[in-house]
Amino acid sequence: MKIYFFRTKNQPIMSWCEGVKGVLLDVTGVLYNSGPTGGAAIEGSIDAIQRLKTSHIPFKLCSNESTETRANFAAKLTKHGFNITSDDIVCPVPAMVDLLKQENLRPHLLVHPDVLPEFASISTENPNCVVMGDCNTHFTYSAMNAAFNTLLSMSPKDRKLYSMGGGKYYKDGDDLVLDVGAYAKALEYACDCKMVVCGKPNKLFYDQAIRLLGVNIEDCVMIGDDIISDVGGAQALGMKGVQVRTGKYRAVFDEPHSEITPDGYVDNLAEAVDLLLSNN
Amino acid sequence: MKIYFFRTKNQPIMSWCEGVKGVLLDVTGVLYNSGPTGGAAIEGSIDAIQRLKTSHIPFKLCSNESTETRANFAAKLTKHGFNITSDDIVCPVPAMVDLLKQENLRPHLLVHPDVLPEFASISTENPNCVVMGDCNTHFTYSAMNAAFNTLLSMSPKDRKLYSMGGGKYYKDGDDLVLDVGAYAKALEYACDCKMVVCGKPNKLFYDQAIRLLGVNIEDCVMIGDDIISDVGGAQALGMKGVQVRTGKYRAVFDEPHSEITPDGYVDNLAEAVDLLLSNN
Repeated sequence: MKIYFFRTKNQPIMSWCEGVKGVLLDVTGVLYNSGPTGGAAIEGSIDAIQRLKTSHIPFKLCSNESTETRANFAAKLTKHGFNITSDDIVCPVPAMVDLLKQENLRPHLLVHPDVLPEFASISTENPNCVVMGDCNTHFTYSAMNAAFNTLLSMSPKDRKLYSMGGGKYYKDGDDLVLDVGAYAKALEYACDCKMVVCGKPNKLFYDQAIRLLGVNIEDCVMIGDDIISDVGGAQALGMKGVQVRTGKYRAVFDEPHSEITPDGYVDNLAEAVDLLLSNN
Repeated sequence: MKIYFFRTKNQPIMSWCEGVKGVLLDVTGVLYNSGPTGGAAIEGSIDAIQRLKTSHIPFKLCSNESTETRANFAAKLTKHGFNITSDDIVCPVPAMVDLLKQENLRPHLLVHPDVLPEFASISTENPNCVVMGDCNTHFTYSAMNAAFNTLLSMSPKDRKLYSMGGGKYYKDGDDLVLDVGAYAKALEYACDCKMVVCGKPNKLFYDQAIRLLGVNIEDCVMIGDDIISDVGGAQALGMKGVQVRTGKYRAVFDEPHSEITPDGYVDNLAEAVDLLLSNN
C-alpha cells in the first residue's frame, strides 16, 4: 500500500487521512463502474463500504447521478452487493426539485425519462427555465432544440438554465461518454446565458451534503474519480480532495494533472478506507 | 423604403451603401429560408440577385452551409429560381479540405453524410484532429461520443478541433435549430480545447471571399441575418455589416442588439440591393 502526503503552510508533512471526521464519496467510478448491462462493483468496494458503515466516521455518497431516482439508485447498488439505502445518497434531483419549489419556477425538463416522476409535483406549463440532467441516449437533436427554443424565447437577462451536474464525461461500461455539462455548454453558447450547476461542484450542493454529515467542512474529505469536479471542486470549498485510480481516472492526464493537485491518490476505495480507518 | 445611416469619426452622416465596391451575402435567411421540404425563396430575393448580377458590383454568397456540396447548394438555389452557379458560392467545405491537405491532417469527420464525398481525397485513418460540420439530425449521442473520444485520446496540447462555422443557431422551416457552433462548444468543454472555426466569422475565411471579389476589405459590405457572425464578424475585420430583417432576425433582441451596432438595417435583400444600386 502506498501512502501519499501533502504539505500545508503551517504543518510539516501529514497524510491526507489524518483528522478526517466525515467522508463524501463519488459513486460511479469509485463504488462501481456503470455500463449498458448495469455495470459492476469495483473490487474491494463492497467490503470497504461495509467497514466504513460500521466505523465511527460518517459518510454520504455524493453523486451527480441524474438518470434515475435515489431509491432506484440505492436499489441498483444493493443489487451489486452494497449495503446502501436512499438516506446514504445525496444527489441533484431532490435538490433541484426543492430549488424549483422555492423559486416558484416552471421548468422545461431535458432530463432522463426515468426521473420525470420525481418532478411530478412541479408545473411545467409555460416554462420560465430549463432544467437539464444526464439524458445519455435521450440527448437527441430534437430534444436539444426544444430546450434551446424554450430558452431563446425568454428575454436574454431572464434565461435560466440549470444543469444537474457540470460534469464533462464519465465512464459507461468500457466507453467514456459525454456528460450533461457538455450539453449544457452547447445551450449556454447558443443562448448567451450561464448555466447554474445544481450538483457537484456547486457549493450549495456540497454544503447540503456536509450538513447531512454534521461535521465541519475542513474535517471532510471527498474521494472521487473526477479530478475537476470531485477533487478540485471539494478543495475549492475547503475540503480535502482525494483521487482514486479507478473509473475515468487516466494516469497520463490525471497524475500529475495540469491544474489540480489532489491531497492524495489511492489505488481504489478499499485503499482509501484502509488508510482512513487505520489513521483515525 | 427606410434608409439607415451610420456616423464615423471623420465623416458626417452617410448611408452604409455609399462607396461599396463588393458585396458578401449570407444565404440562408437572406436569399431563402431553409426547411424540411427544401425551404422557400424570400420575397424579392430572386430578382435582387439578378439585378446584382447584371450590375458592376461583384458579389459572393458567403455561407457556412456544410450539410451539402457547393454544387448541390447551387443546384438547390437554381431550383428556387436563383441565377447562381458554384462559382458564386464561398463555403467552408472546400476551405477545410485545403487546410487538411496543407497541414497533413487526418480528420475524424463529424459531418453531414451528404458532404462525406467532398473529403474522399483525405485519409481518415488514425485521426489526428476532429472536423465538425452542421449535421442537424445526425448530431446523435453516439456520433458526439465518437468525436469526443477521438479528441480525448490525444494529448491535451495536441487536441485539434475544427468547426465549419461557429454559428449558434439558424432557421429551419418555421423552427430555430442549433448550429454546429453549439455542438463544437460541447466538445471544447469536455476536452479542454479550443475550436478553430473554418467559416464565418473566421478572418481567413472572410479573407478568401474578399480575395475572390478582388476589392479592398473596407470597400466591402456583408449582408446577413446573423448579427454576431455575419454583421459583427464582418465589422471586426473592417467591412461594413448590414442586418436584414429576415431569416433568424428577431426584432426584440437584434434591434437594438446589446453588443453589436450594424452599419445599417434593411427589411430584406431586395431593399439592400435597391439601396446599393441607387447609391453606386
